[in-house]
Amino acid sequence: MNEIYPSALFEKVVNEFAKLPGIGVKTAMRLVLYLLRRPSEEVQCFGEAIIEMRSKIIRCHICHNISDSVTCPICCDAHRDHTTICVVEDIQDVMAIERTGTYKGVYHVLGGVISPVDGIGPSDIEIESLVSRALKGDLKEIILALNPTMEGDTTNFYIYRKICSATENKQNSSNTKKLRISVIARGVAQNDELQYTDEVTLGRSIADRKTFGSEI
Amino acid sequence: MNEIYPSALFEKVVNEFAKLPGIGVKTAMRLVLYLLRRPSEEVQCFGEAIIEMRSKIIRCHICHNISDSVTCPICCDAHRDHTTICVVEDIQDVMAIERTGTYKGVYHVLGGVISPVDGIGPSDIEIESLVSRALKGDLKEIILALNPTMEGDTTNFYIYRKICSATENKQNSSNTKKLRISVIARGVAQNDELQYTDEVTLGRSIADRKTFGSEI
Repeated sequence: MNEIYPSALFEKVVNEFAKLPGIGVKTAMRLVLYLLRRPSEEVQCFGEAIIEMRSKIIRCHICHNISDSVTCPICCDAHRDHTTICVVEDIQDVMAIERTGTYKGVYHVLGGVISPVDGIGPSDIEIESLVSRALKGDLKEIILALNPTMEGDTTNFYIYRKICSATENKQNSSNTKKLRISVIARGVAQNDELQYTDEVTLGRSIADRKTFGSEI
Repeated sequence: MNEIYPSALFEKVVNEFAKLPGIGVKTAMRLVLYLLRRPSEEVQCFGEAIIEMRSKIIRCHICHNISDSVTCPICCDAHRDHTTICVVEDIQDVMAIERTGTYKGVYHVLGGVISPVDGIGPSDIEIESLVSRALKGDLKEIILALNPTMEGDTTNFYIYRKICSATENKQNSSNTKKLRISVIARGVAQNDELQYTDEVTLGRSIADRKTFGSEI
C-alpha cells in the first residue's frame, strides 16, 4: 500500500478508475470519494451493473452492434429499410446517426478502420461479413459513413473494391439488380465560419456544390 | 430504453457513470465502451472492487479518516507524535499533508466545515469528538488546517471557542498543561508572482512577516 493512502481498498479502486481513458489519479480519487459518500446499495448497484453489462452484452450477429440479444433491436425492426446498410466504424457512430432521426435503414459496424500504422488489416474488422451481406437478398444501397480521415478513406476504397469484385462474380452467374455504393457528403459544417474552415474541406465543398433551387 | 441505445444494459451503466461528479453522458459512454473492450475478468475485478470498498471501508474511531480497520494506520502508528492533532476538513487533506512528508503528528477529520448556507451546523461535523480528544491525555497542540475560506475561518473560530471553554472547566478541577491551538500559515505560495496575488493574501503575508536571519 502506498503510504499516503489510508486504506488499501480505497487505493485499489482509485487505481482501477485511473486506468479508464482520460481519468488521472486525482480525478479517480474524487470519483471514489463521491462513491464513498453515496448509500451502500446505490454503489452496489453500480458495481453489479458494470459486471452484468460486461458479461451479458453480446454483438448482434447481423450488424455487429452491441446488443442484449442475438439480433439487435435495429436489425429486428420490421419498420426499418433492410435494403439500405450504413457502414460505420464504431457503435458510437450508430448512436450519433440514430440521434439525427433521419436514417431509417440498418447498420453494419466494422469495429475499426484499416490502419497499417496500428497494425489493423482488413481481416481484423468486419469487412468479410459486410461483403456477405452485400451479396445476399435485395440490397439497394450501401452508405459508407466512416470518419473523414486517411484511414477512413482507405477503408472506403477497400470495401468498394471488395464488393465490386464479389458482385461481379455473382452477376456472371445470375442477373441481379444494381447496388449503389455511396459515401456521406463532406463540406462545411452547420454554423462553421468559412475563414476558419481548412482548405481541403472548403475546396471539396466548392467542388461538390449543389444546384440551388432550379436553374433560371 | 432510450431509442438511441442499442442495449438496455449498456444504457444502465452509462447512466450510472453519468451520475459521477464531472462525468457527462458523452464521457460516460466513452468510459463504458472502454470497459466493453477490456477482458471480462478485468471488468469483473473493477466492479467487485467498487462493491467491496463501499461495504468494507469504515471510519477510524479516533480520527474519522477512512480505514480498513477500526483504527486507521496513522492512529495505530507508535512512531507518530500523538500529542499533536492536525484538524482537516476531508480525507483528501490528510493525503495532501501526508504527501508533504513533513508532518509527524496525527489527524482529526471533521468531514466538512460549518456552512449555514449549505445547512451544515457544528453538530453535523466531528467537532464534539475533537473536543473530547482535546481534553484527554497529554495533548500539546492542535493545528487547524482548514481551507482558507470564510467557512473554514468560521469553523476555526468555533473550534477554538469550544475547546477554550471545555479546557477552562477542566482546569478548574485539576491543574493541566497548557494546550497550544495554531492555524496554518497563510501568505504567498511558492513560485507565485506578487503582482497576481490577491490583496488579502498579500496584505496578510506582509502583516505576518518573519524575521530573516538574526537581527543585525
